[in-house]
Amino acid sequence: MTYVRKIINDPVYGFITIDDQLIFDIISHPYYQRLRRIHQMALASLVYPGAVHTRLHHSLGAYHLIGLALQELKNKGVPITKEEEQGAKIAILLHDIGHGPYSHALEKKLIKGVHHEDISRIIFQLLNEHFGGQLQLAMDIFNDAYPKKFLHQLVSGQLDVDRMDYLTRDSFFTGVIEGAVGYDRILKMLTVYEGELMIEEKAIYTVEKFLVSRRLMYWQVYLHKTVMAAEKMLVHIIERANELIAGGTALRSASPNLDFFLKEHNPEDDFIKHIEKFARLDDTDVMCTIKNWCSHEDKVLSMLCKGLVDRRLLKVKFQSEPFEETYIREVREKTANDHGLSIEETSWFVFTGEAVNTTYNPLDEHIQILFKDGTVSDIARVDNALIHQQVIAPVKKYYLCRLN
Amino acid sequence: MTYVRKIINDPVYGFITIDDQLIFDIISHPYYQRLRRIHQMALASLVYPGAVHTRLHHSLGAYHLIGLALQELKNKGVPITKEEEQGAKIAILLHDIGHGPYSHALEKKLIKGVHHEDISRIIFQLLNEHFGGQLQLAMDIFNDAYPKKFLHQLVSGQLDVDRMDYLTRDSFFTGVIEGAVGYDRILKMLTVYEGELMIEEKAIYTVEKFLVSRRLMYWQVYLHKTVMAAEKMLVHIIERANELIAGGTALRSASPNLDFFLKEHNPEDDFIKHIEKFARLDDTDVMCTIKNWCSHEDKVLSMLCKGLVDRRLLKVKFQSEPFEETYIREVREKTANDHGLSIEETSWFVFTGEAVNTTYNPLDEHIQILFKDGTVSDIARVDNALIHQQVIAPVKKYYLCRLN
Amino acid sequence: MTYVRKIINDPVYGFITIDDQLIFDIISHPYYQRLRRIHQMALASLVYPGAVHTRLHHSLGAYHLIGLALQELKNKGVPITKEEEQGAKIAILLHDIGHGPYSHALEKKLIKGVHHEDISRIIFQLLNEHFGGQLQLAMDIFNDAYPKKFLHQLVSGQLDVDRMDYLTRDSFFTGVIEGAVGYDRILKMLTVYEGELMIEEKAIYTVEKFLVSRRLMYWQVYLHKTVMAAEKMLVHIIERANELIAGGTALRSASPNLDFFLKEHNPEDDFIKHIEKFARLDDTDVMCTIKNWCSHEDKVLSMLCKGLVDRRLLKVKFQSEPFEETYIREVREKTANDHGLSIEETSWFVFTGEAVNTTYNPLDEHIQILFKDGTVSDIARVDNALIHQQVIAPVKKYYLCRLN
Amino acid sequence: MTYVRKIINDPVYGFITIDDQLIFDIISHPYYQRLRRIHQMALASLVYPGAVHTRLHHSLGAYHLIGLALQELKNKGVPITKEEEQGAKIAILLHDIGHGPYSHALEKKLIKGVHHEDISRIIFQLLNEHFGGQLQLAMDIFNDAYPKKFLHQLVSGQLDVDRMDYLTRDSFFTGVIEGAVGYDRILKMLTVYEGELMIEEKAIYTVEKFLVSRRLMYWQVYLHKTVMAAEKMLVHIIERANELIAGGTALRSASPNLDFFLKEHNPEDDFIKHIEKFARLDDTDVMCTIKNWCSHEDKVLSMLCKGLVDRRLLKVKFQSEPFEETYIREVREKTANDHGLSIEETSWFVFTGEAVNTTYNPLDEHIQILFKDGTVSDIARVDNALIHQQVIAPVKKYYLCRLN
Repeated sequence: MTYVRKIINDPVYGFITIDDQLIFDIISHPYYQRLRRIHQMALASLVYPGAVHTRLHHSLGAYHLIGLALQELKNKGVPITKEEEQGAKIAILLHDIGHGPYSHALEKKLIKGVHHEDISRIIFQLLNEHFGGQLQLAMDIFNDAYPKKFLHQLVSGQLDVDRMDYLTRDSFFTGVIEGAVGYDRILKMLTVYEGELMIEEKAIYTVEKFLVSRRLMYWQVYLHKTVMAAEKMLVHIIERANELIAGGTALRSASPNLDFFLKEHNPEDDFIKHIEKFARLDDTDVMCTIKNWCSHEDKVLSMLCKGLVDRRLLKVKFQSEPFEETYIREVREKTANDHGLSIEETSWFVFTGEAVNTTYNPLDEHIQILFKDGTVSDIARVDNALIHQQVIAPVKKYYLCRLN
Repeated sequence: MTYVRKIINDPVYGFITIDDQLIFDIISHPYYQRLRRIHQMALASLVYPGAVHTRLHHSLGAYHLIGLALQELKNKGVPITKEEEQGAKIAILLHDIGHGPYSHALEKKLIKGVHHEDISRIIFQLLNEHFGGQLQLAMDIFNDAYPKKFLHQLVSGQLDVDRMDYLTRDSFFTGVIEGAVGYDRILKMLTVYEGELMIEEKAIYTVEKFLVSRRLMYWQVYLHKTVMAAEKMLVHIIERANELIAGGTALRSASPNLDFFLKEHNPEDDFIKHIEKFARLDDTDVMCTIKNWCSHEDKVLSMLCKGLVDRRLLKVKFQSEPFEETYIREVREKTANDHGLSIEETSWFVFTGEAVNTTYNPLDEHIQILFKDGTVSDIARVDNALIHQQVIAPVKKYYLCRLN
Repeated sequence: MTYVRKIINDPVYGFITIDDQLIFDIISHPYYQRLRRIHQMALASLVYPGAVHTRLHHSLGAYHLIGLALQELKNKGVPITKEEEQGAKIAILLHDIGHGPYSHALEKKLIKGVHHEDISRIIFQLLNEHFGGQLQLAMDIFNDAYPKKFLHQLVSGQLDVDRMDYLTRDSFFTGVIEGAVGYDRILKMLTVYEGELMIEEKAIYTVEKFLVSRRLMYWQVYLHKTVMAAEKMLVHIIERANELIAGGTALRSASPNLDFFLKEHNPEDDFIKHIEKFARLDDTDVMCTIKNWCSHEDKVLSMLCKGLVDRRLLKVKFQSEPFEETYIREVREKTANDHGLSIEETSWFVFTGEAVNTTYNPLDEHIQILFKDGTVSDIARVDNALIHQQVIAPVKKYYLCRLN
Repeated sequence: MTYVRKIINDPVYGFITIDDQLIFDIISHPYYQRLRRIHQMALASLVYPGAVHTRLHHSLGAYHLIGLALQELKNKGVPITKEEEQGAKIAILLHDIGHGPYSHALEKKLIKGVHHEDISRIIFQLLNEHFGGQLQLAMDIFNDAYPKKFLHQLVSGQLDVDRMDYLTRDSFFTGVIEGAVGYDRILKMLTVYEGELMIEEKAIYTVEKFLVSRRLMYWQVYLHKTVMAAEKMLVHIIERANELIAGGTALRSASPNLDFFLKEHNPEDDFIKHIEKFARLDDTDVMCTIKNWCSHEDKVLSMLCKGLVDRRLLKVKFQSEPFEETYIREVREKTANDHGLSIEETSWFVFTGEAVNTTYNPLDEHIQILFKDGTVSDIARVDNALIHQQVIAPVKKYYLCRLN
């Protein structure tokens, strides 16, 4: 095996080092390189212009963090073999390999009926075959089928390196510095107890801070009303295109691969046959298509496309109570009038919905604190912690989108 | 006039404030919004994954810096009217408005015979008409036709805010922190003397550092061999496409706008008629097209496209002497052999060139130092300065690109 | 008046600008310069080695922030005169002018019976006389005797620039980056409504984050058990010295000024006569003295002094219940035995106490949120806010200090 | 051996980890703890208020960097044993152990005739005895008596971790961000060739940047005229005190240890007997003494002391030519007149000198570049490097200090 050592500059962590030939080969594979062309934060850059970083960059970052985490755990005496280390690194590197263009919401419209995690699993399996079975341990960790449970928890759990990287990186690139989490301190405080990933007692305030930062990022960034409006428009564009195609309108996208998924109605039947086409799709197919459709004769489609391209986005209002039907009706009528649309057509531009976020949900989430005396407690049950019953109830907001 | 105040998060400077309705309207215009879809550093993200920031973000950053610069100068007693302030801000905001997809090198292939600055001037003029002549003062500053010369020098000069922002921003997003320039100290040390922009004596070391940082950014980033290889491949793709089209091959790009510029041979005759098409072109048209061409039947075209999309880039070697003809011949023959190409076809993959950079050229560049005693001197003539005759000679390196 | 413009490098904010002759003269006064020799965080550097910044640096930082705050408010149309701006700046610059060596706890032992804020007021008044009454407006703002209440609230209130600077600065110098507060966003979101300082609705998450950061800084830094142990030892050293002097032991400190305050029992009677001596005291008098006393013949005194100088600190244990008397007795007996001390003497080394911190106390604290619809609400009463009844109860911890 | 793991927060590097009992014990020793009370940058905080960091913090930082450097070299296959790693870490930790109060200039006045490096060696030896000979390997590395020369070069050489830390740290705490060196990139590029420390070819621009940053830090910070004035005053205070004592004046300092060194004229005879006294001296003895002497009856002494304490510093003028004797005479006469001093006494306040700095001196300094083809070259001989013959000549400036 030749000696490999690549150093990648990363504004977030300084340098990311690749020193394993297999990992280097995985990164070099076209499936992984595709992630360069998928934005980590979908359309959030319409509000936060710096937020143009990619899924490739995020997964490299998570790979960097898992290396630090494994080093810390080994320093603390947790037994981890070289193979397990490589496996965990590959598992996190590929955790987003099945991600489609832009957000998960769009993915569902393009590949109907196939769950996003299944796509990841299929592509992971294809890569495993390509690399002669060398990715088996990584797949087991990814699928939580490996006995050392904490390795899976590092890849996908309450304090996994995926979240640690995306909160850190999204905070960095948006410039919302308040969203920064003390990832380095959390990493220093990780420990393994009875096979499970835990956090040392003295990091309680850091974990609180992590949860509060996540809460802030949700409301200030991920569920920002303008970001949400843009993402709804994107979904509506694809839905409208589906509808037009179903109705017999000739509608071509910018690429044959995207054409395939726009036209094909039931890829779930044998999605695996079309995985190669999927693995060529990225944000550029979608955005180039939307630009082309700006001059399409279907008024709804071209309005939505022009709005997104020129950043004339729908207007969003949040409130704590559902919107009244009569009010929505009024808005629709006014919109129909102002823009020469039928009442039915206004449903593409005027609609309501709910945004929900939970600061910490002790039913699903388990951040386990290991105390000095050897006891273990869920963060939500720790005395005096900020994160307790009152905070854990999900916060729900109702929104109304409309044309400006 | 309604009261406008928009705050944009910027990871580089914290917050950028827009508090002028006209400026807000210019930013909202589709011509300006297009800059969201042009990468500031073209293909440099293939080496520096964070370098995916946009021309829009850069010009907003430069706008922020000119605001700080003007404030400093006003604090020092330099008379600047509100109209001049607005004009200088608009001039810098629009300095890249005519930028085509990816780099200037590509632009020249797409729009033959029209100089990039002329395109900017045409679009600037169109916007001026759109805004009822309100951009006239900004245009005069941009074109160096305004009596207060220092305003133009802030927009385009040796220590202009364009350079200050791009060095700062590119250093930030690549993670090459050594490229950081002390922009805030330079701004504090700017002054105006006899109508010209100068820098105070005590900032000499800061200016030295600025020039050395720029030198480092050129050799480490802008002229990085892998970045260069990618940009050469991009230019060759367009050239090959032009050739195929000229030869009668049916070759469609992903968008009608790009098709137009690929087919049209002499847009310079009446480029102005096609400006609307140009003003819809961006990186996504080009990248989606290249992805489509990966499976084109022309072997040269598809090889170049797949190479770029999958990041299998040409290999570059730098040396201080020109490459020998016989050596180049040998490489071509080997390449023809290995890849089943004709010798002529190898010219798309094997070729030489020169990369040149000057740390400071006192013939064109004039960084004027104002001493406490009222004398003025070019930085290259200051006693003991690092930047003197020996350093100013351009550094030239020869390169050879080849298939791996 | 001569034109003044001094730029001070600050690692936290970049540059701090002084452009007012009177402010420059106040900073140059020996009373203000004394603050260079008082550590902002007393003995916290024994745990956080970077935390050696000074009261002078903190008050310059707070001065910088108030400048930004006033600029924002003026941009939003709040009327603020030049005199008020100068007054508010001076008020914050001098808010710590009466601070004694190290912490407030020590101050109380050295200057018995005079409240720390009274000392500030006396010195403020002396400076006002020295500067011919030019500080009157600043004093009125400081003492909350000025009609525009928001100016006082900026200097001393729930979201004042004092807190904003010390949380930011202490987080920076300790390296506890999680303690960082989004001071720049808070400043952008300040507003004045009916004469009171408020914060705009959209900054709710930022305010939550501010309170959570403060909570973290208290438990992780200010009330860190080792920092607390050191501060208790410092107080005990002065108390023991007082006791020895009262008992007739000849005990000299390193400086005549400190000698005066050690010997003088009732300075409150006519403290104002001795203010000049006080205004010469700083951390170096105390530390040099403690170093000298390391070899004093009184065993308790020299043990305490050597412990502090050589960083052999008392050991602290925190728990949520009070310590049992019998347990404390046992520890004392063991200590007496191990170190050859009498049971009475062990009280200098073995003792208990309580540490209390409140995340937000809506009885005293009032962070007012101004909603878009013009309503005002205390942050603790906002729907879905993290900061509500459950969180506001003070957290109390019991501690026991002992010899290691 | 008990398991040790201490994590220290450092604002510069995030966290510094101590995981070796011996190293932990050395850090806990009073000799090392004394470095907490010596400022890294002596009096530079009079100009840069953040520059109050300590020798202890700097040597912990250098310890952190050597750990990273050794890890990199081991990853590249350089054989380094656990003992050598520990030895190199201890060597750098103790490189400043013999440092006296404030700057080296002061040290020479206090301990006449004993060289600063000899003091370090004596204390190093004492610690070695205290720790039962466990520091022998570290001493050999420190004294360049260990066969693997590169270990000494990491501790003390052209690109040693001492310089890397102090440039990085001083730049950080002063806020002169332009002085930042790309320490992490330099560390990644270190290599060992034929037993010597070298730097890989691709780091040439980083090394240039390192040298230019150092140059900037010298002229902008270390030789800043106000910093220089303060340090000259400090030296003059001790010289004046020596003179007064020699003349029979009763003059006490704030501490018996400092008294000893002020009175003792030839400690070199048997300095080793007094090393314990030396090892108790720090900045607080000196500063407390100077504060006490502000009211001394000797006019020269009290003027110098008050000037330093109240930051009324001498004024410095730099020029490229020596000052004329007649001009100096004139200044002295005016000073004598203005301040009621004799002409002889003015020599304490009016004097000239030279400040010299060399960007890179290829006679003493050897930064060796290892090229890919296996050749080695001094950075000053590399083609096109910024650092060549013209730059390497030392820059000399003449200064005149005077009373304001």
